[in-house]
Amino acid sequence: MGEFDLIARHFTRPGRTEGGVVTQGIGDDCAVLTPTPGWQWLVSTDMLVEGRHFLSTVDPRRLGHKALAVNLSDLAACGATPRAFFLSMALPRADDDFLTGFAAGLFALADAHGIVLAGGDTTAGPLNLNITVMGEAPPGAALLRSGARPGDEVWVSGTLGDARLALEVFRGQLSLSGQDFDAVRVAMELPQPRVALGQALRGVASAAIDVSDGLTGDLGHLLQRSKVGAELHLDDLPRSSILAAMPQAIQQLCLLTGGDDYELVFTAPAEAHARVLAAGRASGTPVHRIGRIQSEPGLRVRDGHGECLPSTWQSFDHFK
Amino acid sequence: MGEFDLIARHFTRPGRTEGGVVTQGIGDDCAVLTPTPGWQWLVSTDMLVEGRHFLSTVDPRRLGHKALAVNLSDLAACGATPRAFFLSMALPRADDDFLTGFAAGLFALADAHGIVLAGGDTTAGPLNLNITVMGEAPPGAALLRSGARPGDEVWVSGTLGDARLALEVFRGQLSLSGQDFDAVRVAMELPQPRVALGQALRGVASAAIDVSDGLTGDLGHLLQRSKVGAELHLDDLPRSSILAAMPQAIQQLCLLTGGDDYELVFTAPAEAHARVLAAGRASGTPVHRIGRIQSEPGLRVRDGHGECLPSTWQSFDHFK
Repeated sequence: MGEFDLIARHFTRPGRTEGGVVTQGIGDDCAVLTPTPGWQWLVSTDMLVEGRHFLSTVDPRRLGHKALAVNLSDLAACGATPRAFFLSMALPRADDDFLTGFAAGLFALADAHGIVLAGGDTTAGPLNLNITVMGEAPPGAALLRSGARPGDEVWVSGTLGDARLALEVFRGQLSLSGQDFDAVRVAMELPQPRVALGQALRGVASAAIDVSDGLTGDLGHLLQRSKVGAELHLDDLPRSSILAAMPQAIQQLCLLTGGDDYELVFTAPAEAHARVLAAGRASGTPVHRIGRIQSEPGLRVRDGHGECLPSTWQSFDHFK
Repeated sequence: MGEFDLIARHFTRPGRTEGGVVTQGIGDDCAVLTPTPGWQWLVSTDMLVEGRHFLSTVDPRRLGHKALAVNLSDLAACGATPRAFFLSMALPRADDDFLTGFAAGLFALADAHGIVLAGGDTTAGPLNLNITVMGEAPPGAALLRSGARPGDEVWVSGTLGDARLALEVFRGQLSLSGQDFDAVRVAMELPQPRVALGQALRGVASAAIDVSDGLTGDLGHLLQRSKVGAELHLDDLPRSSILAAMPQAIQQLCLLTGGDDYELVFTAPAEAHARVLAAGRASGTPVHRIGRIQSEPGLRVRDGHGECLPSTWQSFDHFK
C-alpha cells in the first residue's frame, strides 16, 4: 500500500460516504448527488494555507475542525442545510499522527452537522487544505448579502474579537493568563459555525454574511451588495468578559477588524425583531442588535459619546 | 486596490458568472444553483501542485486550460453535462502576466464546454490550484466504474501515451524532433476532455473511467469496482504515429502506464458495438475496441504473439 492509499484510508469511512442526498460517495470519478426536489444548491469553497490561515503548531484535530468550520460558516451565512463536502489536500508527507487527528476533528464536526465527505483529492506538496461545501435551501430562501434595506436592524451572533485577541497573544503583542488564553484560543481554533441559526433565519433575515475577515470589512461587503449604509454603536458590540477587560483601543481593534470569528452578521426588518430573537432561541444562539441600516452609503461606528470613529478600519487583506 | 482584489478581478466576468443552472454566481458567501428538475449532480475535485502536476515553466494559458481540463475529464467519465466550477488558488504573488494567461486558457475551455465559474477563493501561498466541477445527468444515467460485466467489450477514446512521451523528453530520457516534441507536448499540456463522448455514451456504456494515471492503473480501478477482470491486446491500443515510431519498450511504457492522457476507457455490451461507434461519430471522437471483460479478476495484456506481458505495470503513485 503506497502512502497515497494510506492517506486516502484515513478519510474513507465504510458505509459513511453515502447518506442523505449523497447517492454515491467516494470511489468513482465523480460523486453522485440526488437533489431534494425543488430545492436550490448553495456552494462555497475555501483554501487554507499553513502559516497564513493556521499556525504550523496547531493541534491537527483542531485544524480538521477549523478547515470544515470555515466552510460550514459560508453555508450558515446563506441559511443552507449542509449536505456534502469535498476535501483536497496537499501534504508534505504522510504523517499518520497528523492525519489521525485531522480526520477526527473533521469528522466530529461533519457528523454534528450531518454533512457527508463525498469525495476529494490527495497529493504531495506544501501543506494546503481546500474544502468545497454544498448545502440546500428551499427555492428563493437563501440568505444573500444583497437584501438589506434602509431601516433594517443589524444583528450579530455570539461575541466578536476573541479570535483576534488570541492571534495578538501568539504574535507576542499581548499577554493573557493561561486560563484566558486557552479560552480565546478555543475561539480562534475551534470556531462554531452558526449553521442552525442560519437555517432559523430563513424567511426572517433580509441579508447575512459571516465574519471571517472582520466585522467592518465583512459588513462592508454586505452594505455594498445591498447598496446601503449602516450605523453601529461600539458599546452594543457583544464581547467576552476577557475582551471587555482589555484596554479600549484593543477592544476596538478586535471587535471591528478582528477576523476568524465566524459569527453571522445579518439584517432584518425592524418588525421582525421578535422573530429574530425567536430564531436565536430556537437555534440556541445568542443574537444582539448592533445597529441600523441607512440609505446613506458607508459604515459609521459611534462610540459611547455618540461620536463617529475615524473610518480607517480596514478588512484583513491576505496580500498586505 | 489590494493585490487580493486585483487577482479576483481577473476571474470576475461581469454578466458571465450566471447562466444555465447558476442562479447567483461570484460575490456572495455561496453560489446559488438551481438544479434541472429530476436530474442528479456529478461532482469532482482535483488539486494541482507546481512541480508535481505541472512544470514551473509551463505557459500560463496552457496551465489554465489543463487545470480545468483534468476536472472536466472526470465529468466526461461520468457522462455528465458540465454546469459550474469553483476555483481556489494559492499564489506566491500577484503576477499580472501569469494571471492574464491563466484566465484566458481557463475561460476558453470553460466557454467551449458551457461551464460557468460560479465561485472560488484566492490566497497567498505556494502555487496550488484546486478546481471543483459540478455537472448534471438524468437520474441513474451517470456512467460509473462499477457497471462492467463479463463479455463486455473494452474501448478507449483517441490515442494513448503521447503525454508520457513528452514527459520523458522533459526528463531528458528521450529526444524527439522539434515538430514531434511540439505535438506530444500539446497532448500533455492541452488535453481535450472527452465531454461530448461521455454524454453520447449515456445509456450505451456499462462503465467508464478517464485515463489520468495510466491505462492499466485506471482500468484496474474500473475492474476492481466492477469485480471483474479483462484481457487487452497491446497491438490494439491506439497510438499516434510519433509513438508508433518509437522502440517497442517505450511504446509499452507510454501506452500502458503513461498518465495525463485524459482519454476515456469504457466498457459496453458486445451487442452495443454499433451504438458505441455511433456515439464516437456523433461526438467527433475516435473510439477503439482494445479488449474484453472477463469474470476472472485481474488484467491480462497480450502481445502480438498472444503471450501475456508480465504484470509488473504499476499506476503512477504521487508519493513514490
